[in-house]
Amino acid sequence: MSSHAFDTALKLRALDQGRFAGTIGAAYWNMVGPYGGTTAASVLKAILMHPDVLGTPLSITVNYAGALAQGPFEVQLHAARTNRSTQHWTAAIVQNDAQGQPVITTTATAITAVRRETWSLSDVPMPPVARPAEVPPMRVAKAMAWLDNYELRPITGLIPQSWDGRQHDHSLSQLWMRDQPARALDFCSLLALADIFYPRVWLKRASRVPVGTVSMTAYFHAGEPELQATGTGYLLGQVRGQEFRNGFFDHSAQLWNEAGSLLCTSHQIVYYKE
Amino acid sequence: MSSHAFDTALKLRALDQGRFAGTIGAAYWNMVGPYGGTTAASVLKAILMHPDVLGTPLSITVNYAGALAQGPFEVQLHAARTNRSTQHWTAAIVQNDAQGQPVITTTATAITAVRRETWSLSDVPMPPVARPAEVPPMRVAKAMAWLDNYELRPITGLIPQSWDGRQHDHSLSQLWMRDQPARALDFCSLLALADIFYPRVWLKRASRVPVGTVSMTAYFHAGEPELQATGTGYLLGQVRGQEFRNGFFDHSAQLWNEAGSLLCTSHQIVYYKE
Repeated sequence: MSSHAFDTALKLRALDQGRFAGTIGAAYWNMVGPYGGTTAASVLKAILMHPDVLGTPLSITVNYAGALAQGPFEVQLHAARTNRSTQHWTAAIVQNDAQGQPVITTTATAITAVRRETWSLSDVPMPPVARPAEVPPMRVAKAMAWLDNYELRPITGLIPQSWDGRQHDHSLSQLWMRDQPARALDFCSLLALADIFYPRVWLKRASRVPVGTVSMTAYFHAGEPELQATGTGYLLGQVRGQEFRNGFFDHSAQLWNEAGSLLCTSHQIVYYKE
Repeated sequence: MSSHAFDTALKLRALDQGRFAGTIGAAYWNMVGPYGGTTAASVLKAILMHPDVLGTPLSITVNYAGALAQGPFEVQLHAARTNRSTQHWTAAIVQNDAQGQPVITTTATAITAVRRETWSLSDVPMPPVARPAEVPPMRVAKAMAWLDNYELRPITGLIPQSWDGRQHDHSLSQLWMRDQPARALDFCSLLALADIFYPRVWLKRASRVPVGTVSMTAYFHAGEPELQATGTGYLLGQVRGQEFRNGFFDHSAQLWNEAGSLLCTSHQIVYYKE
């Protein structure tokens, strides 16, 4: 049995009627709650554990409605509609508040699909960048526990070294990344990696304003064969901010494996203060 | 009272407990169901009609689970969580099937938010293109009713004139667009316009393979002031395919007003055959 921190964090116990019990631990703790990538991955894990699941993940949208605390939580799933080759899921994460009342912390929808081989083609080729071995790993200040579980090799758009408020000319970042210690890629870890990018507003403004992801959507282009071809290799992550407007910005991201297959595209809208 | 086809199509009657009754008419009919943009807009309309709604739209994800037929339908809403400045909605469209049984055709989540003026900036400037008056309107073959309700002035990436199967070098399209007859922009019509792009796989392959949007997400960067500044003016739409893989492709889109404000960014994952 795996003892990887990611598997421990995502451990769920099936209850009745599409309910799955988990526990938020400290290993992926972020500033005021668990790392959003593991929250999203917990929803996906529950879907993939559901006895009725059809196919593999195609898309997921996770809405971060409120903070999760350390301790028990429940993923509640409903297969809203099952077609011949696609299945539509609605989901929520529920946790008891300080008064013991169940509260929805997270809403989500997801689609799983039976994928067949068809004409295929990428219209966003992997950018030409240095190989992972040529890029030194980031030295992480031990501020946030979740970062210890990732090996990050930033290529461009590094987190600002001084918070001097000087406006950056773009909001593009590229980095190589994988679980630490290395772990063979699966759908859940791919989804968690899609949330890894630090807030674009920090790069753009060189100012560490308070932020929080409000909603994240990921599209899975990888099936089982692409996951297996990736194994424990690195992913190249690329992210770019689009619009920063009145308290919220969005970004658009792509994740390729080392062979240049685009495994996942992802989008977020993120709150920022002031 | 407005007699615009869009307002007629989006007409909803509030029932009890977050339920809203509407009717799918013929005006926005697509090939095998209503135009997906109006389906998404119906969900948003219901949210904006809800007596408890907080703020204006920030994001919406609409999942097209099954076809809608002409006739009555219901939008069912639930405010899953209301915070100080954001509100999380879950929604479904339900329609009776041929046996009179209610069936979920559409699932959705949305977030509304109270927006305040903050530091703001666009990182995706509007591309330099010809002004709307310099671009001739597209002459629409009367195949699909919904197209009659839009004025489209394609700049680049026009729909292929011959379906010769010759692979196109990119999947970028840009066009000016607005409601026809002109109608002052609101959140619902903005969302409907975000679904206007014809399938990227048709452009890329010059082949009119069967397609269907599976899921669409839109992020609203516009608030009421930006809508009012836009009025009945044109929007510049830009869309680009990302990955076409084993039966599904995704695209990423931006919508600016004539003054160059990025009002909405949007993403889709779309089924394609073979």
